[in-house]
Amino acid sequence: MSVITAVDTFDIRFPTSQDLDGSDAMNPDPDYSAAYLIIRTDAGDGHGGHGFVFTIGRGNEVETAAIEALRHHVLGRNVEELLADMGATWKLLAHDSQLRWLGPEKGVIHMAIGAVVNALWDLKAKRAGLPLWELLSGMSPEDLVALVDFRYLSDALTPEEALAMLRAAEPGREARKAALLAEGYPGYTTTPGWLGYSDDKLARLAKEAVAEGFTQIKLKVGASLEDDIRRVRTARDAVGPDVRIAVDANQRWDVQDAIDWMAHLAPYGIAWIEEPTSPDDVLGHAAIARGVAPIPVATGEHVQNRVMFKQMLQAGALQVLQIDAARVAGVNENIAILLLAAKFGVRVCPHAGGVGLCEAVQHLSMFDFVAVSGTKEDRMIEFVDHLHEHFVTPVDVHGGSYWPPSAPGAGTEMLRETLADYSYPEGPVWAAGAVLETTRKESR
Amino acid sequence: MSVITAVDTFDIRFPTSQDLDGSDAMNPDPDYSAAYLIIRTDAGDGHGGHGFVFTIGRGNEVETAAIEALRHHVLGRNVEELLADMGATWKLLAHDSQLRWLGPEKGVIHMAIGAVVNALWDLKAKRAGLPLWELLSGMSPEDLVALVDFRYLSDALTPEEALAMLRAAEPGREARKAALLAEGYPGYTTTPGWLGYSDDKLARLAKEAVAEGFTQIKLKVGASLEDDIRRVRTARDAVGPDVRIAVDANQRWDVQDAIDWMAHLAPYGIAWIEEPTSPDDVLGHAAIARGVAPIPVATGEHVQNRVMFKQMLQAGALQVLQIDAARVAGVNENIAILLLAAKFGVRVCPHAGGVGLCEAVQHLSMFDFVAVSGTKEDRMIEFVDHLHEHFVTPVDVHGGSYWPPSAPGAGTEMLRETLADYSYPEGPVWAAGAVLETTRKESR
Repeated sequence: MSVITAVDTFDIRFPTSQDLDGSDAMNPDPDYSAAYLIIRTDAGDGHGGHGFVFTIGRGNEVETAAIEALRHHVLGRNVEELLADMGATWKLLAHDSQLRWLGPEKGVIHMAIGAVVNALWDLKAKRAGLPLWELLSGMSPEDLVALVDFRYLSDALTPEEALAMLRAAEPGREARKAALLAEGYPGYTTTPGWLGYSDDKLARLAKEAVAEGFTQIKLKVGASLEDDIRRVRTARDAVGPDVRIAVDANQRWDVQDAIDWMAHLAPYGIAWIEEPTSPDDVLGHAAIARGVAPIPVATGEHVQNRVMFKQMLQAGALQVLQIDAARVAGVNENIAILLLAAKFGVRVCPHAGGVGLCEAVQHLSMFDFVAVSGTKEDRMIEFVDHLHEHFVTPVDVHGGSYWPPSAPGAGTEMLRETLADYSYPEGPVWAAGAVLETTRKESR
Repeated sequence: MSVITAVDTFDIRFPTSQDLDGSDAMNPDPDYSAAYLIIRTDAGDGHGGHGFVFTIGRGNEVETAAIEALRHHVLGRNVEELLADMGATWKLLAHDSQLRWLGPEKGVIHMAIGAVVNALWDLKAKRAGLPLWELLSGMSPEDLVALVDFRYLSDALTPEEALAMLRAAEPGREARKAALLAEGYPGYTTTPGWLGYSDDKLARLAKEAVAEGFTQIKLKVGASLEDDIRRVRTARDAVGPDVRIAVDANQRWDVQDAIDWMAHLAPYGIAWIEEPTSPDDVLGHAAIARGVAPIPVATGEHVQNRVMFKQMLQAGALQVLQIDAARVAGVNENIAILLLAAKFGVRVCPHAGGVGLCEAVQHLSMFDFVAVSGTKEDRMIEFVDHLHEHFVTPVDVHGGSYWPPSAPGAGTEMLRETLADYSYPEGPVWAAGAVLETTRKESR
């Protein structure tokens, strides 16, 4: 038996706002950040559990404080007991009646629960000597169903239905695992499309993306219609007619704005419109989906929990469901969402980018292919070539595909040097003059 | 010209879990708390702006940290400028692109924005020498519309429609103000109905409530059907056929559970069913509303923002809209919600209780009566007789009604001694042995 001896937290920030990487219609100058934790044990096996919440700068300290507010639930606890029943462990964290008031099940506290849950999964996978996708893909349908909190879901998905779906997919697991290892999992790239980039840079990066094997790129839109028409045309000219171009408005519009704006972009061939409006607006997304059809509506990176995804599916509000590894309450809740998507027959194309989101979310898509939906058809994982060098097991993306990680764990572990260098505000990167401009802006 | 010289924060907690006051099906042992701030200026007029977020214990430090994360937006700013255009000030806080990622517009960060916004309104009202309800009721329709962020609302309510409603209500303002001062605003009480109370205590408190002039009481339900039937019958026997009994499930049920459970309670005459399921479940509430009709569905204390309320109204998901002074982003967003309710013709019966929620929310109902909906018909403000003694201007509730406050401000200012005594964990109330049991439970 071993015990959790420490839950160490870190406020990690990267000064990305200096280059306008990650700039979009709602987020002009993000500093990509992570509220990060390491769960340590006395097992003496060298394994720690690593997890994080992705944020974009200010407020990362609030998210870190929220992780600390959960510490008492795991510190001093028996590790084997916590890891053996991750469904019960999830409920222990998510059902804290006092902390629940801060959500419930949304925002800062819910994402913090996700970070702790993901850190425990990282530890569990390392102890099992398996990458997370393979660990999950080897669990029985019964054990997978036991991970999910079906509260508030039963009008759309019951445990019995989930079990039946997982059992139906069980016979094909081995063949799909082999296919995954042989073919990889498709990716698409947002690298060309940030709003702060010039047209020349956009065209150059778009061509590079196609040369690298990507069959879909994505452009940020929503700040200026005139600019958007020109940028989408520039991208279409650069990539030719066969590469898919998705656009992402980052919640910029009201319902009618979205419908009107998309009518102007539709002639250039749009793969999907992402985050057209508030992520809270189920009925608004449904109205937009009707108004922009046949262009699919995509959303999810800011959809707060399984209850919202349930409604998005019930209302026909999205045709592309974008899970995020660090927005909801971790692996368990994302499994609930994958099951909901499978039940409704909607494709899942995860949101990634940021800090470590690619590393983390690939496991969920690969698990989904092997053990849940059983298909990669029309599905792909977002890829942005940022900050991977800070992770112990960075993603392997080449030829336009994600290649299944083989290292044990959930992909969430940052390099020790990164934790030291980018700690805010005391790490050398922030203390040094290099980020003077950013810090001045922050403290105005 | 004066300047904001300090934004002081306080983590205030009351050891209410010792008496099971406030216990319900989801919150067995709350310690009512407030993440509190005081905005101080160099004006030399003695006025500070006071605001808070209500929480139920653990995590209050996270909420306090979120308020601190907003400090840089107001510290050092020109007070008159901030207060003169509260619509612009709201956007300054709510549209911080980096902090927005932590919501967006929900949970810890959104409630913190509400606390800062409410503190500024408290300061503005004190400077005007008016209670907040009277300050708002004296503003022009144009100025009121300028307080509201209509983003994501335009498919349900446009600024032009809001302006027309406010203008239509303008001629009757003076008469309704006189009526309010003469008649008060109806209240109802939840004091008898906490789940932790015995049947005898329930019956005794219910009778007392009626004797005090209340025409509606509310009972917590949802933990045990058998107990609920007995408790509702006990209450009905105690109050007779003419007093209204509402029930509150505090999000305990799934959709079908709610419909089935309410079929058993319906024979005893139920004024409304409150929070039957997740506050995020617009479509679920709509299904429940159809399933339990003609019993009205009430919700709102955990509804995160105006976008969710918009959908609740669009979907017919609620028949009683329960605003809360400290859940959304302050006075401005609650005005948006009052306007939405008026547009849809749905009655507003605020959630209150907790710490200071009665003191704060009464201003909004009174403003609504004078300047927005123009009616008190079937409307009432929740009342719980807890912790009012900690406020500088506690509510005046007698004869079953709230009586309009005359003191300048928003009602949100706590006594200086309370801030000292109940500060967590260093205040004497927490340091002393009196709450040893509670602190032990917290730190396990």
